[in-house]
Amino acid sequence: MSTEKRTELSNLGEFGLIKHLSKQFKVTNKGTIVGVGDDAAILENTSKQIVVTTDILTEGIHFDLMYVPLKHLGYKAASVNFSDVYAMNARPTQITVSIAISNKMSLEAIDTFYEGILLACERHGVDVVGGDTTSSVSGITISITAIGEVEKGKEVLRSTAKEHDLICVSGNLGAAYMGLQILEREKQVFRENPNIQPDLAEFPYLVERQLKPEARGDIIQVLNKANVLPTSMIDISDGLASEILHIGQSSNVGCHIYEEKLPIDHETAKAAEELNLDPTICALNGGEDYELLFTIQQEDYEKIKAIKNISVIGHITEPSVGCQLVTRSGTQINISAQGWDALLKLD
Amino acid sequence: MSTEKRTELSNLGEFGLIKHLSKQFKVTNKGTIVGVGDDAAILENTSKQIVVTTDILTEGIHFDLMYVPLKHLGYKAASVNFSDVYAMNARPTQITVSIAISNKMSLEAIDTFYEGILLACERHGVDVVGGDTTSSVSGITISITAIGEVEKGKEVLRSTAKEHDLICVSGNLGAAYMGLQILEREKQVFRENPNIQPDLAEFPYLVERQLKPEARGDIIQVLNKANVLPTSMIDISDGLASEILHIGQSSNVGCHIYEEKLPIDHETAKAAEELNLDPTICALNGGEDYELLFTIQQEDYEKIKAIKNISVIGHITEPSVGCQLVTRSGTQINISAQGWDALLKLD
Repeated sequence: MSTEKRTELSNLGEFGLIKHLSKQFKVTNKGTIVGVGDDAAILENTSKQIVVTTDILTEGIHFDLMYVPLKHLGYKAASVNFSDVYAMNARPTQITVSIAISNKMSLEAIDTFYEGILLACERHGVDVVGGDTTSSVSGITISITAIGEVEKGKEVLRSTAKEHDLICVSGNLGAAYMGLQILEREKQVFRENPNIQPDLAEFPYLVERQLKPEARGDIIQVLNKANVLPTSMIDISDGLASEILHIGQSSNVGCHIYEEKLPIDHETAKAAEELNLDPTICALNGGEDYELLFTIQQEDYEKIKAIKNISVIGHITEPSVGCQLVTRSGTQINISAQGWDALLKLD
Repeated sequence: MSTEKRTELSNLGEFGLIKHLSKQFKVTNKGTIVGVGDDAAILENTSKQIVVTTDILTEGIHFDLMYVPLKHLGYKAASVNFSDVYAMNARPTQITVSIAISNKMSLEAIDTFYEGILLACERHGVDVVGGDTTSSVSGITISITAIGEVEKGKEVLRSTAKEHDLICVSGNLGAAYMGLQILEREKQVFRENPNIQPDLAEFPYLVERQLKPEARGDIIQVLNKANVLPTSMIDISDGLASEILHIGQSSNVGCHIYEEKLPIDHETAKAAEELNLDPTICALNGGEDYELLFTIQQEDYEKIKAIKNISVIGHITEPSVGCQLVTRSGTQINISAQGWDALLKLD
């Protein structure tokens, strides 16, 4: 670290920092009329509906700078908001980024964080149009608000799943959670003996899923191309169990989810075995996959069955059934939301 | 405190807290199609342009819970964002509220904070349409994003002031800063002797200006009614000096501001005398007034001269003049932005 350039924030001051950061935010989205630099950004009026979502991430709760590189942190902070926008069947267009940082952070560290934000924005065609930067007494807090657009009638809510609909999920589940377990294990090893370098080479995919999740805009595009409008949708941030319960409660329906249908990557299964965890539980309750969970009408099955990266994992039932996991042995287990915090306590 | 009801957050859990809070967010704005409770809110498409602004407030930097009641904190956190929206000549319509809080906070304390937010929202016709609540390792961080709307062509930027325009300010200046000085003084007294209760009765107006600033939507309405479209506008969050420099730089103009024209309340002047401060410096560099600073064409003077709460304090010049304060004695002083942090160091 000692050879890296380090510019103290106190040398720039608040206005200097804002000026420095603002230069990097180029407007590329034609819907952005005024970006950063005024009291507020101005967005073009459009015939589409606007969607708005926000997330707040705090150091020590959502991320550990000991193993989360700042560029990845920026990328992830933007991606989780894009994921929420896609989960409405909308397209993200702009974000605002607010951060509270310790004065101990260097300008170069902040730049690295914004590099990650801008990389994610570039990939999803999004402009940074505002934000706020301030000091914090301790630790970093990041708050991002994403704006998006969706044609009227094309928005997809959590509350509109119907009996007999098929339940689908994109990608695979539990990988981000297993990635976190691997990172935590290596952190322990490093703490006990700082001469041992972390060995993350065995599970590169899991570590990437944890550190650099991708918002599934590609799935939204594929579904649109296939002329499939989901009947309900949510993104998986707290784990499949928690999200399917949200759909069940909001739509007033029950469901059957089949254990054997859960898409689990082989690295996830391997790491779970190594760490003596049940991969199904990781898939159900592990958070931060940022995959899309959605329901479709049965007649749309033909249109999606050949699409890579979409798995049908169950179907919607009448509400009295509740949300049930049908295990490989045929037993039905009531799905309960453990969520993220509860799961962490298992370790 | 011991007789007050206290519900621990840990008894509710994250989902319980979100459910509890969500119940309070009623949709009243017809532009809100879907409020809280999905991955994102959905806003109606409109023929107007959208404005977006965001602010982040951190405990220990922006507020001191020792003398800031939580209801006032919520009110202020919302108001400062509305102020930014008004400064674009727009009308706020929705906000999202993200907070990171310590687990030590009770549910009742959070409710009190949201009461303040909702009171400000009610007064300005704004819906809370989203947010995020999370734990923090220490202290409270609040991040609010406000959305607003403005007819195309009616937006007012910082960058469009022209030579000979008149410089106007709403309300009066320096009161919020003096309120902070009074609160800090009483805090010191209390620390030295906790048996002495803070005496804030001498300066009720100053304390209110600090704790409960009002966003000047009324001024926007009055100007609109008078058929005056400002040529540039900014809200005063960091002090008049800092804001007029923003207009000067963005618009590539200079200005003359007349000391004798600065609107200063008699309480501000009295407190300044008591604390041995120069009221002009407080008006120039004291932050958090959340008044509007704007420029108008000379021919609009007749339309605004009778409006209460608007003072003409100077005029725009060619850029080579720079930004000058013309003192009572006729001397010209270069205005420099001290901003908020710098001023605090004077104490």
